[in-house]
Amino acid sequence: MKAFMDKDFLLETETAKKLYHEYAATVPVLDYHCHLNPKEIYENKKYDNITQVWLGGDHYKWRQMRTNGVEEKYITGDASDREKFQKWAETLSLAIGNPLYHWSHLELKKYFGYDGYLNGDTAEEVWNLCNAQLQGEGRRPRDLIKMSNVTLVATTDDPADTLEWHKLIKEDPTFDVQVLPAWRPEKAMNVAKPDWVDYMKKLGDVAGVKIDSFKALIEALRIRLDYFVANDCIISDHSLDYVMYQPASAEEVEAIFAKRLGGEMLDPVEKKKFETAFMLEMGREYAKRNWVMQLHYGVKRDNNGMIYGNLGPDAGIDCINNYAPAQEMTDFLNALAVTGELPKTILYSLNPADNATIGTIIGCFQSSEFVGKIQQGSAWWFNDHKPGMIDQMTSLASLSLLGNFIGMLTDSRSFLSYTRHEYFRRIACNLIGGWVENGEYPADYKTLEKIIKGISYNNAVRYFGFDLEQK
Amino acid sequence: MKAFMDKDFLLETETAKKLYHEYAATVPVLDYHCHLNPKEIYENKKYDNITQVWLGGDHYKWRQMRTNGVEEKYITGDASDREKFQKWAETLSLAIGNPLYHWSHLELKKYFGYDGYLNGDTAEEVWNLCNAQLQGEGRRPRDLIKMSNVTLVATTDDPADTLEWHKLIKEDPTFDVQVLPAWRPEKAMNVAKPDWVDYMKKLGDVAGVKIDSFKALIEALRIRLDYFVANDCIISDHSLDYVMYQPASAEEVEAIFAKRLGGEMLDPVEKKKFETAFMLEMGREYAKRNWVMQLHYGVKRDNNGMIYGNLGPDAGIDCINNYAPAQEMTDFLNALAVTGELPKTILYSLNPADNATIGTIIGCFQSSEFVGKIQQGSAWWFNDHKPGMIDQMTSLASLSLLGNFIGMLTDSRSFLSYTRHEYFRRIACNLIGGWVENGEYPADYKTLEKIIKGISYNNAVRYFGFDLEQK
Amino acid sequence: MKAFMDKDFLLETETAKKLYHEYAATVPVLDYHCHLNPKEIYENKKYDNITQVWLGGDHYKWRQMRTNGVEEKYITGDASDREKFQKWAETLSLAIGNPLYHWSHLELKKYFGYDGYLNGDTAEEVWNLCNAQLQGEGRRPRDLIKMSNVTLVATTDDPADTLEWHKLIKEDPTFDVQVLPAWRPEKAMNVAKPDWVDYMKKLGDVAGVKIDSFKALIEALRIRLDYFVANDCIISDHSLDYVMYQPASAEEVEAIFAKRLGGEMLDPVEKKKFETAFMLEMGREYAKRNWVMQLHYGVKRDNNGMIYGNLGPDAGIDCINNYAPAQEMTDFLNALAVTGELPKTILYSLNPADNATIGTIIGCFQSSEFVGKIQQGSAWWFNDHKPGMIDQMTSLASLSLLGNFIGMLTDSRSFLSYTRHEYFRRIACNLIGGWVENGEYPADYKTLEKIIKGISYNNAVRYFGFDLEQK
Repeated sequence: MKAFMDKDFLLETETAKKLYHEYAATVPVLDYHCHLNPKEIYENKKYDNITQVWLGGDHYKWRQMRTNGVEEKYITGDASDREKFQKWAETLSLAIGNPLYHWSHLELKKYFGYDGYLNGDTAEEVWNLCNAQLQGEGRRPRDLIKMSNVTLVATTDDPADTLEWHKLIKEDPTFDVQVLPAWRPEKAMNVAKPDWVDYMKKLGDVAGVKIDSFKALIEALRIRLDYFVANDCIISDHSLDYVMYQPASAEEVEAIFAKRLGGEMLDPVEKKKFETAFMLEMGREYAKRNWVMQLHYGVKRDNNGMIYGNLGPDAGIDCINNYAPAQEMTDFLNALAVTGELPKTILYSLNPADNATIGTIIGCFQSSEFVGKIQQGSAWWFNDHKPGMIDQMTSLASLSLLGNFIGMLTDSRSFLSYTRHEYFRRIACNLIGGWVENGEYPADYKTLEKIIKGISYNNAVRYFGFDLEQK
Repeated sequence: MKAFMDKDFLLETETAKKLYHEYAATVPVLDYHCHLNPKEIYENKKYDNITQVWLGGDHYKWRQMRTNGVEEKYITGDASDREKFQKWAETLSLAIGNPLYHWSHLELKKYFGYDGYLNGDTAEEVWNLCNAQLQGEGRRPRDLIKMSNVTLVATTDDPADTLEWHKLIKEDPTFDVQVLPAWRPEKAMNVAKPDWVDYMKKLGDVAGVKIDSFKALIEALRIRLDYFVANDCIISDHSLDYVMYQPASAEEVEAIFAKRLGGEMLDPVEKKKFETAFMLEMGREYAKRNWVMQLHYGVKRDNNGMIYGNLGPDAGIDCINNYAPAQEMTDFLNALAVTGELPKTILYSLNPADNATIGTIIGCFQSSEFVGKIQQGSAWWFNDHKPGMIDQMTSLASLSLLGNFIGMLTDSRSFLSYTRHEYFRRIACNLIGGWVENGEYPADYKTLEKIIKGISYNNAVRYFGFDLEQK
Repeated sequence: MKAFMDKDFLLETETAKKLYHEYAATVPVLDYHCHLNPKEIYENKKYDNITQVWLGGDHYKWRQMRTNGVEEKYITGDASDREKFQKWAETLSLAIGNPLYHWSHLELKKYFGYDGYLNGDTAEEVWNLCNAQLQGEGRRPRDLIKMSNVTLVATTDDPADTLEWHKLIKEDPTFDVQVLPAWRPEKAMNVAKPDWVDYMKKLGDVAGVKIDSFKALIEALRIRLDYFVANDCIISDHSLDYVMYQPASAEEVEAIFAKRLGGEMLDPVEKKKFETAFMLEMGREYAKRNWVMQLHYGVKRDNNGMIYGNLGPDAGIDCINNYAPAQEMTDFLNALAVTGELPKTILYSLNPADNATIGTIIGCFQSSEFVGKIQQGSAWWFNDHKPGMIDQMTSLASLSLLGNFIGMLTDSRSFLSYTRHEYFRRIACNLIGGWVENGEYPADYKTLEKIIKGISYNNAVRYFGFDLEQK
């Protein structure tokens, strides 16, 4: 029996161990997609206790506690942090086979030096251990980022954002990690939201454009895109129900825009035509600027009206949306590709049943402009676990070139989540090491080093075009 | 090489063996979902031969014999029982990798002490061995239930059923296994069936209500629900194409009802509105009574018109229906949850590609009312095999709390099928034992015992609220 | 560590090795589905170099090179064959976990005796080795077919084809491999193609029928079917978006036909009605002639307009189409089955998420007319890799009778691709051998030999009814 989560955790062969320890573990982390708050990085405040770090905004953990029948009071309510921690510890011990079990223990080990396992009985000792360290020196946000060997963080930002915290961090000589914005124009696209009209006003004010037409909206966004460019942004991100394609004439799109701006809601077909027009315009702008377009889709959000009423979005009540026609996605990508305006694109579906479909779609739109121009994104959110990552990488390897994969994203709100990269790298090394051990790939360590370091770090450096060195 | 299906069948590590033999194998079977006939339990008649037990109504086996090109005469026709058994034995040897191969041999071993393997050559010895035992003492229905260490059986019953056999069994002091009804109002919901109008009359007569409106239908069902409550029922079951949601006003539903009651057939939208209204009403009634709502969906039935014409339903001509929008399911569940009227619910899809979708949906509707209030049901019917169970449990573990899983259902028409629980438990113990062996979960046997006994038996006792002790 | 792709490649247990070397490797190859050109077989010309063989028309490899950012010039353009080979070799080394890695090295080993691994550094030696052999004797098309122990090749042919090359090969006493046509009436069904009207004229001329109605179209096809029968054809093949079912009256179908023949394009519903009528007529004709109907579906073709504009179809720009309602497929099959007119049918989906759905559908339509009358086809095209084949066989075993599976198709344009059968057989033997080693099936070598040789060769001989002996 292997020891519980020791240094060779998830590494089942000698080749896997070699690949991980000699290659994967030696390169930095490129955090090209997360939801960290740049203000928190800049201010670099101490945490009082582990509950603040772990349970403050982590809806993954909230769901699990609800699944364990824990009262909301101990999840998002007014129970004490110590009580909440106890409930979490008790819940965690039932999460056998769940990534939270592994993430939590990787975090306890890496950041707090805890080698045991957390449950109801050990909660007290873990609470004391973590809090002592958090309240001491060396466990503030910037410390955790540095401990994790991160070279660059890309946050998630609204087009109307001032990016003031990014600027302040850039000007701060005491912190050498790049913290860059990423462009997420969700509020501009979410035409069905009640506050969309207000947002048009806000965006127009920031851009200095009166947004009274679809054309004006795109103009305002162009101005903001250039502002983001001036602040080192090269990544965009879209969260979509699915990658839709229902083209309409410019006139029709303007009529739809005018209707909505006038306060009326759109019918589903109008909404889809607006979204298609919006995404096509954005795609073209990204291509012009050599940005990467991230399309995260397959999500149905805010499904439980009672919890949503109490807590709002990001409350642990989202699920997979299994509607994702290949027809529309390929037609959308082609509408950009046929005129040479398809940017570098990463496709991520929340539905693992889409892996093979994506793996075959990306192959249709590759080109000599970039190595691995169209990527399948790593297993993400609900798929960010051992079988999910194995499935995604096995599918990608079978259908595309795993050697060019840009690897893991963090997608986190917590400064402790960088262990997800360690988790991913261990799983990748075990998968690839297993192939070598089984005679399915030669023990050609020169190429294996290139592949492993590539997936762990270098491919992403090259793909996004960050101002970083490959390692 | 491991011996063929010996005591450590499917247990590949020492931890797996320990978990199975010390924990899983020691707790009883809770058969919360089956299609056993309570009359047969009450009457407790001897069987003449193994063909009656195995091939009398088992459409799983019929399909396989047809797949082997066997003439219908030897499947459901007038060939002798010995001839039918021969054809089955010959077919079985080709069923490598099929659960029927394992189930059949587990049954031969457990109930008849046969250690060999069945094929065309050994059919004669197996026929003689089984029949001698069946015709002797100790292999009647009640014996088989007791040999299987079953504490409770929940059958499947129509709202108009008298439940007379359940009553007689309850009054019989010589049999201490609880045999409870489960509520399956399929005939009331199946508005597209030609005999639906007749069924309204029948149900109304039993309930003492004139069913001349949708409201009256629900009233009649309420009366029958209370009758079922009085007979210890706490479980409902629905077989659905998919979990649909198309709400309509009360007036509209009444108009649809009146149209159909008048003898007209409904169009697809009307049908869906009726079904949605029906399911919402039922859900509310279950919540009031603290029942469990089982939603079995993803089935397309009676697909071969020629066989259906000869044999009717349950003839081995059903398949997976792959239409199951997450959108409608979540909207349905939310329509109940938002007013606090969502009962304990178990979601089972026949399509294994739905596993991850379900795993993420259940997390949206958990609450502190019950531990594991919303469950993903175990791999069922066409998924009730080793890879299917591994997939379901791996997915559930990755997305939810495996430690609270209520485990296996029998779903059988045969008294020999209790070995499916043994099959399930071996697979579960091997999966979990493998994680422990691989350092993915600590060798914390106190918690592992709780988890294994929970999944095998105790979680279901707690979840349904049966009058049983946890073990 | 196992040596790289040695004689026991992919065979992980002693039983797997025995099954492969003693059974699977000893029987011939039946190539019942490929895209080889019969003219090339007849003419039997030498190749100049390995690039011609490998990169001349292989869109699998083209996709991968584009994924690696290679310029089109080195893929389908005017770079030298040596330069193209270099780019391919460099790309291949990144294709870890991809079947092209395995296929390429199996081909280098089997046909050229190369034991190393191909990458940018070894490209020169591989180039020289292969070309020397190709330019010498013994590596022409017929040699490669004979080296591969192929007994029969079925090509893919249009109804209007003269089959002249098939006739010439049949008359050639120096070549004893059967080369038979297979019927693919794609041009007759593809009513949305601009040249469909012209094709009606061409087909009518060949058949000697004036095609001025749907009825006349079917009559012309009947005449050509009989011509194909006279040339030993017993297989049909259809590439479909999905298996559709939208029935229409004869009058309606004639009206749709007349509209299209008059030069108008059809709307989507009309198109689907035409396709349904076409497929029903074809199915009936196949049933009458005891042919096999292959339904390949789940493909969306020619997705990148820029590449399609330059290269036309089969350019490596196809993907999975994930729209495939079980509802329509079962209704289509039933429409034929209910009148006893369903031919032997093989269902292949390009979407691996359809495996379980297909596995349950085929069981509904089996009958005593043929052993394994309705088959799930082997993992194909984008699924033709180790995990894809394991998934397909595991699913088929779990849901049907693996012992009757007709096994691998080649589906290739290259004479070197017969190693795909070796790849498939190794994977099948490892899967089945693993079950035996794990005590899940007895070490009954008499039955195992029958199953392994059946899946490798004999089942297909029996199923199609070719004039060949079982081995």
